[in-house]
Amino acid sequence: MTVKHYSLLASLIAFPVVAMAQNQSGNGGFDLMYLIALGSLAALMFAWFLAKKVLKSDAGNERMREISKYIQEGAMAYLRQQYKVVGIFFVVLFLLLGFISWVLPGITGERWLSPFVPVAFITGGFFSGLAGYIGMRIATKANCRTAQAASESLNSGLRVAFNSGTVMGMTVVGLGLLDLAIWYLLLRYVFIVPIHEIPPIMITFGMGASAMALFARLGGGIYTKAADVGADLVGKVEAGIPEDDARNPATIADNVGDNVGDVAGMGADLYESYVGSIVATMALGAVGAYGLGQEEQVIRYIELPALVAVVAVLASILGTFLVRTKEDATQKTLLQALRTGVYSSTALIAFASFFIVWGLLGMEKIGLWASMMVGLVAGNIIGYFTEYYTSDHYKPTRKLVETAATGPATVIIGGIALGMQSTAIPVLTIVIATIGAYFFAGGGLFGLYGVGLAAVGMLSTLGITLATDAYGPVADNAGGIAEMAHLDPEVRRRTDALDSLGNTTAATGKGFAIGSAALTALALLAEYGHKILEALKLDKVHQAEWDTAFVHAEEIGYDTFLVLEEGLYALSINILNPIVLAGLFIGAVLPFVFSSMSMGAVGRAAQAMVEEVRRQFREKPGILVGKETPDYARCVQISTVGAQREMITPSLLAIVTPILVGILLGPAAVVALLAGALVSGFVLAIMMANSGGAWDNAKKYIEAGHMGGKGKDPHKAAVVGDTVGDPFKDTSGPSINILIKLMSMVSIVFVGTTIGLNRLIVELVQKIFGF
Amino acid sequence: MTVKHYSLLASLIAFPVVAMAQNQSGNGGFDLMYLIALGSLAALMFAWFLAKKVLKSDAGNERMREISKYIQEGAMAYLRQQYKVVGIFFVVLFLLLGFISWVLPGITGERWLSPFVPVAFITGGFFSGLAGYIGMRIATKANCRTAQAASESLNSGLRVAFNSGTVMGMTVVGLGLLDLAIWYLLLRYVFIVPIHEIPPIMITFGMGASAMALFARLGGGIYTKAADVGADLVGKVEAGIPEDDARNPATIADNVGDNVGDVAGMGADLYESYVGSIVATMALGAVGAYGLGQEEQVIRYIELPALVAVVAVLASILGTFLVRTKEDATQKTLLQALRTGVYSSTALIAFASFFIVWGLLGMEKIGLWASMMVGLVAGNIIGYFTEYYTSDHYKPTRKLVETAATGPATVIIGGIALGMQSTAIPVLTIVIATIGAYFFAGGGLFGLYGVGLAAVGMLSTLGITLATDAYGPVADNAGGIAEMAHLDPEVRRRTDALDSLGNTTAATGKGFAIGSAALTALALLAEYGHKILEALKLDKVHQAEWDTAFVHAEEIGYDTFLVLEEGLYALSINILNPIVLAGLFIGAVLPFVFSSMSMGAVGRAAQAMVEEVRRQFREKPGILVGKETPDYARCVQISTVGAQREMITPSLLAIVTPILVGILLGPAAVVALLAGALVSGFVLAIMMANSGGAWDNAKKYIEAGHMGGKGKDPHKAAVVGDTVGDPFKDTSGPSINILIKLMSMVSIVFVGTTIGLNRLIVELVQKIFGF
Repeated sequence: MTVKHYSLLASLIAFPVVAMAQNQSGNGGFDLMYLIALGSLAALMFAWFLAKKVLKSDAGNERMREISKYIQEGAMAYLRQQYKVVGIFFVVLFLLLGFISWVLPGITGERWLSPFVPVAFITGGFFSGLAGYIGMRIATKANCRTAQAASESLNSGLRVAFNSGTVMGMTVVGLGLLDLAIWYLLLRYVFIVPIHEIPPIMITFGMGASAMALFARLGGGIYTKAADVGADLVGKVEAGIPEDDARNPATIADNVGDNVGDVAGMGADLYESYVGSIVATMALGAVGAYGLGQEEQVIRYIELPALVAVVAVLASILGTFLVRTKEDATQKTLLQALRTGVYSSTALIAFASFFIVWGLLGMEKIGLWASMMVGLVAGNIIGYFTEYYTSDHYKPTRKLVETAATGPATVIIGGIALGMQSTAIPVLTIVIATIGAYFFAGGGLFGLYGVGLAAVGMLSTLGITLATDAYGPVADNAGGIAEMAHLDPEVRRRTDALDSLGNTTAATGKGFAIGSAALTALALLAEYGHKILEALKLDKVHQAEWDTAFVHAEEIGYDTFLVLEEGLYALSINILNPIVLAGLFIGAVLPFVFSSMSMGAVGRAAQAMVEEVRRQFREKPGILVGKETPDYARCVQISTVGAQREMITPSLLAIVTPILVGILLGPAAVVALLAGALVSGFVLAIMMANSGGAWDNAKKYIEAGHMGGKGKDPHKAAVVGDTVGDPFKDTSGPSINILIKLMSMVSIVFVGTTIGLNRLIVELVQKIFGF
Repeated sequence: MTVKHYSLLASLIAFPVVAMAQNQSGNGGFDLMYLIALGSLAALMFAWFLAKKVLKSDAGNERMREISKYIQEGAMAYLRQQYKVVGIFFVVLFLLLGFISWVLPGITGERWLSPFVPVAFITGGFFSGLAGYIGMRIATKANCRTAQAASESLNSGLRVAFNSGTVMGMTVVGLGLLDLAIWYLLLRYVFIVPIHEIPPIMITFGMGASAMALFARLGGGIYTKAADVGADLVGKVEAGIPEDDARNPATIADNVGDNVGDVAGMGADLYESYVGSIVATMALGAVGAYGLGQEEQVIRYIELPALVAVVAVLASILGTFLVRTKEDATQKTLLQALRTGVYSSTALIAFASFFIVWGLLGMEKIGLWASMMVGLVAGNIIGYFTEYYTSDHYKPTRKLVETAATGPATVIIGGIALGMQSTAIPVLTIVIATIGAYFFAGGGLFGLYGVGLAAVGMLSTLGITLATDAYGPVADNAGGIAEMAHLDPEVRRRTDALDSLGNTTAATGKGFAIGSAALTALALLAEYGHKILEALKLDKVHQAEWDTAFVHAEEIGYDTFLVLEEGLYALSINILNPIVLAGLFIGAVLPFVFSSMSMGAVGRAAQAMVEEVRRQFREKPGILVGKETPDYARCVQISTVGAQREMITPSLLAIVTPILVGILLGPAAVVALLAGALVSGFVLAIMMANSGGAWDNAKKYIEAGHMGGKGKDPHKAAVVGDTVGDPFKDTSGPSINILIKLMSMVSIVFVGTTIGLNRLIVELVQKIFGF
């Protein structure tokens, strides 16, 4: 397709939107947000259609189906257990929120929380969990079918795996839009909430989704790495049996891990990113337009990110049809096929969103489109450099491979140095993107809206990029089944090719996830600043009402000022103030403490698995000679229980810290806390993800026959790197993204509560100490 | 001694000070700053006296003297080469500074830099280098003497080693006070600079000292670890000869490394910390008193930190006399002896400084004494927890030892998790100390002065704590000599005991160094905020001169405000502004990129060493059977050249980044840059130091016979951890402390230059793009 084609197609997609926008006058007329419901249905129906297609394909021979069933059962057992634990957590938090928002106002006479919060919180968690559940359901059914299809051809294997990945991608965006649509329509037409107050309420379901995502990522990450390490250490190293061997009691748990970690965890994670970026942007749009007195424009600023998301769904669906190759496809042509799909969708979205901005807000606001494009480009840059630093096609990982010659210590030093170095470009990219998006959108309040739009732009292609990401674990599982069912080694080679292809696209996907997390967190930070003013009832104070140009907002904390910006008061939080610096310090240390907890959790859970596998080998000597069946379920259960127990403390850290800091040091310190956690967490997350990715690929590169190949000393050194990298890249690293956003959302939701309690404490201190 | 004794002794020390302060009226009368010169002389004379004493003791047999001479020559060769490279750097920067401060004002008509800056910069660098040089000189002469003394008794060995450490400690504080005294007296009585303008000029020699310290730490750190890894990998692992064996060509380089890294590097580093904390505090005192119109008090605020330092010198000298034990001393009684010395000095300083504050500023300002005490206590807390996390007497390292059972990967994961976890308490301690010191000192401008005083308090005991720290490498070297000279194994056991004792006290010392770095950086940050105002000529604008209560300082950057504080305008930099957040992001990533560079440098330099040792073994097969002498000098040279080459780029990063960010994004972004680098660097430095320390001690614990002892698999796994930990704890970690402060000082010194260039760029952009 040429530029002309794209432009034509894009205007066709965008035309109805533009037409309706032109007709729409203020709050009356046709509400464009109905389109979100339609977009959601389109995504979900497409997912349903593809799911049917995947399920119709051949599930292979009896042995394959049996293994797949083990994995399914293990995965479901895990999810049941997880949802039980998480359910308790959600019920407790629901009651707490309910108490604060429904009961407390009757006692204190002050409203600290919107009455919709408890319910919105639950729905966010529910849909996030559902996205992970559906994705995992289809992935565990697609694994044997992919293995079977791969025994026909590489291309058939790709299709089944990619289709199941697409089911996941479409489910995530579909459910995300569904939740948005339901709440928007309910609040607007049933509860008749003023339109500019709708997005802040919707942020609450962002908090629910984030909490769920953190549990899913952490629990899944701990599970999968515990099973992986346990299976490797005892099975491969001690007993000397190959990977994915059916005699290894932990092998089913290992394959289950791919699903609960890389599929269910990732699904919940990206659901949260997607919904979070859209609601944060909507909220900032409402603040900007309403604050500046452009009341009739509010709805259009709210609609913009949602409509871009809807158009992106259609573009993604079209893009998936372009992922096809000839039967004799090579690895390279396969990658090209995937990229054609992604890039076509991207181009379509870029063109179509131009018309949407134009139609909704007119040509003078076209800078907002530029902000969005900045996000899209930044996502691609970060994605590219993620691949550059972790793929064995480039210098950094090749150099890491060389360090294996001098043993594991130099591999570790080299990998950590690589990860640290790889943080520079993403940070610069985010910095330039933030400043660019801010100024393209006109600076000030709309500038922050522009930063949010950049995040929306970056994540708009999620429907298809997630598909290219999520099919990797399916291919991985298919390989495991091929091994355990003793299929032709050629099948394993094909699934390995698919898996390795998946690694490349997953690296790019990780770049998008992490970049969008930073931008979304920035948008949430800005929204939090606004919520502080709102909680202090200073948000609607206009210039004329003040004698002097600023007010020293004692209530907020030391050295905090309200400053005039475009006729509206905004918050200025002085970074040079000790209380603010204190918040910054605490924020910066949190991702480290959090990572320490999650890595420690992997270690402990893995230890339990190691002991269980050793026990089974010891007590049932028939296992190793293939005469006894190992107790797979017991291993699954050990990993499950371990993961559930271990995920609670770090999650509580994320929720309790911002509230506690807010109560003790005030909201100004919380702003700094969030900023500190954002910058240090962003850097740490990239470092851990890229160190881990590079170690993984360095090991695979050596296994492909370099540096003496498998079993030699350099390989052993590389295996050490890979093992260290596992919790880095699959547990701690990705969880940090969620941690940052969850803390922001918690701060936003509890802003009234913390400010109220902080005031009580300040008064108490003043009474006791007299100052 | 009891509390009564301390109090008596302290008032005896403080009495003359108080008496003179009472007599002193304003700027007239006896200038108390002459006392600094006296304090400096006392420290230097005591150092000279001890040095004589060390040199008089028996240097051992011919073989020992010969080995010691090799080490001396290697160390001097290194320092010659280092000072050559650093000399070029200093000359270039001197010319650049000279051009900006002497030539440019004639062209542009604007003064961007004080005319004293170029010379002050050079003296700071010179004295910092000199402190390292003298410390190393005595350490390399004390090593064989310690070995000889240890062959008599453990106690004799301790005395020689501790005396040489004391020479170093006293030299550092003596030279620090000397530089302060010379510049103060010159500026005041020769150049007749107004008294409140003196401290900001003196910060320039802080910059010189920091630059020198960074070179010394980085160069020394790279050297020592390259030699260490090279010696271990080829000698111990490949050739199978024991540690410190004379047949290993890298063994002399390894022993030289202890001196250039742990002695010369640490000396320059702590000189920088010491001087930096004092001048930063003086500057803040001047800003506070002068700004608030208390002109006649300015000198007293400047004198306070200096006088505390002088009293601390006397207290430290007294403390060293208390470090003595009976002849049959055990490890435990030795530690007690050291602690008696340190704690007695600490108590004396605490009592004496109470009288100094009282005498100088009266009872109503006694809160400043509390600020200082907060620093002392915080230093002890951080020091204690550094020991807790890294010593094998406590749970964390014991648990780390257990992870060795499952191989190197779990050791690495466990060590990194331990390091990350260990960051929480130091951060909380610094946070509480900062807030405490700020409020005890009365908040506002004096509050920041209080934070500086906390740093001064923390470092006041440096004379003696550095002694307990610096004797470790001497004992380590003595052990090497004992080994190479084939002395009785009992001697090696004794030096090992001394070395291990040194590890414990060094851990505490590290806690002080890192804690004081954070507090000093905070003080420098505040000073930078003031310098911005000064550069914009807004610093002396009082309330009456303004119509409205604040001014939007467009020149400084977006969203920056001047706010009223105690009648004086201060800077408020809004953390919610995108440009400020951009600075925060860039600051947070710098310590990571910097660490990546320094770790990569160690890797490359070690690689060169490995190849050289292999070459020698290959080309001179007689070496291994003891028939040929290895070419020690060649190994020394390789490490030297490697270290020099590698230290340039990271150092430039520290200097160029704040200037570049200032020019492109303005000074508000630089404030955020410094804050971001401070919080993320502080956390990263603690993590690396403690991970490294714990790995080191875990290995030693296993070598002491646990987990199967030396040579077994757990030991091999622990060795991997130790090797990874080496660059963590001895190269990257400690350099980050200096990086943070150097960046602050560079920002302060170049504030006029960067603001000037930033304005030019902003004007240019406005001309071209019309906005």
